[in-house]
Amino acid sequence: MTDFPIDDRNRLRRKPARGSFDRDIIYPIIDEAPICHVGFAENGQPFVIPTLHARHDDTLILHGAKASRLLKHIEAGHPVCVAFTLLDGIVLARSAFSSSVNYRSAVVFGAGRIIDAEDEKMHALELVTNHIVPGRWSEARIPTPKEMHATSVVSITIEQASAKVRSGPPGDEEEDYALPIWAGVLPLATWVGDPVPDPRLAEGIPTPESVGRYVQSQTR
Amino acid sequence: MTDFPIDDRNRLRRKPARGSFDRDIIYPIIDEAPICHVGFAENGQPFVIPTLHARHDDTLILHGAKASRLLKHIEAGHPVCVAFTLLDGIVLARSAFSSSVNYRSAVVFGAGRIIDAEDEKMHALELVTNHIVPGRWSEARIPTPKEMHATSVVSITIEQASAKVRSGPPGDEEEDYALPIWAGVLPLATWVGDPVPDPRLAEGIPTPESVGRYVQSQTR
Repeated sequence: MTDFPIDDRNRLRRKPARGSFDRDIIYPIIDEAPICHVGFAENGQPFVIPTLHARHDDTLILHGAKASRLLKHIEAGHPVCVAFTLLDGIVLARSAFSSSVNYRSAVVFGAGRIIDAEDEKMHALELVTNHIVPGRWSEARIPTPKEMHATSVVSITIEQASAKVRSGPPGDEEEDYALPIWAGVLPLATWVGDPVPDPRLAEGIPTPESVGRYVQSQTR
Repeated sequence: MTDFPIDDRNRLRRKPARGSFDRDIIYPIIDEAPICHVGFAENGQPFVIPTLHARHDDTLILHGAKASRLLKHIEAGHPVCVAFTLLDGIVLARSAFSSSVNYRSAVVFGAGRIIDAEDEKMHALELVTNHIVPGRWSEARIPTPKEMHATSVVSITIEQASAKVRSGPPGDEEEDYALPIWAGVLPLATWVGDPVPDPRLAEGIPTPESVGRYVQSQTR
């Protein structure tokens, strides 16, 4: 569950949270995160809203109802900060002070614009739909003109970004290793259960390929 | 009588039927969430930072390094917005438009103050340590004066809050139920693996009660 290999050479060292500005580190975190948290400010008042997303090259795509405060704010070109966080484990050190979590976190800074052109907007919605469950778009009923009209889709140019990653065992103070206190990591991951068919699902419709692939790809 | 006051800051504009201002709905979400996302703004630039937390009555407790930008900002009494999000499932509707996620989400608005008094600060750190793994504080080595000095702990008064919850099967347009498209929910939860002892753990130290209870309480 970690992007970074751990071997005997680095296992025993104290590992502070590590930072990176590398797309090759940052983008896999964005792509794996099922949701993100978007931060914006109005007259100094901060807001944070969880939402679905997709990434396309150096842009993020968000969507929502046309009337949403978040979408209107982004459409106006105001700066946003978007956080993506994957929690990989609880790190129980011998000392409370050194206890922590293992995680992969990315933060993006940028500004957005509304996507108005119908074909670009439809493609952006395809990316968002396929973000969590790849391949779902081609199985689902695509949006009608009325639904397209009710939806705002924005593209946020990723101007700056950073990642922070912590992995591996606790890093206690050297003198604490002699304490008779258990230390270690509780691994965490996203668990996916068996698909629950809609109670109104017509008979004879099999579980689709996208769902089968998604379930296979996750922790069970 | 446990509802928070509603104004422009926490009014739910989108899908208000999914919303609540009731502490009895909001606080269990905060308490179950392992981490939160804190939003703040400096000169109009929003920031979102994931961090650990604890709740004590109508206050949130956050902690971090004394030098952290987030902690300094909160200590100065600036407004913050804190989001707590539990993802419960992927909702695959027949139409892409009606596809969604099941979630329990809480958003808190407030302002903070630094906790300076040693006993209050120590108690706050106990709450944060016990938030994810209840009972861990009494097993761990508590902070030294030097560690206490290196740590900032803040208390944020919850002035306003709201929750939004979606659960259950997809809600398709009535005419879409006849389509030969699979629809349903993929349940999501946090999975916890077997505890991984620190490679430097001394022999003969058993897995502690707190860890056993935590693992038992989670999806396996």
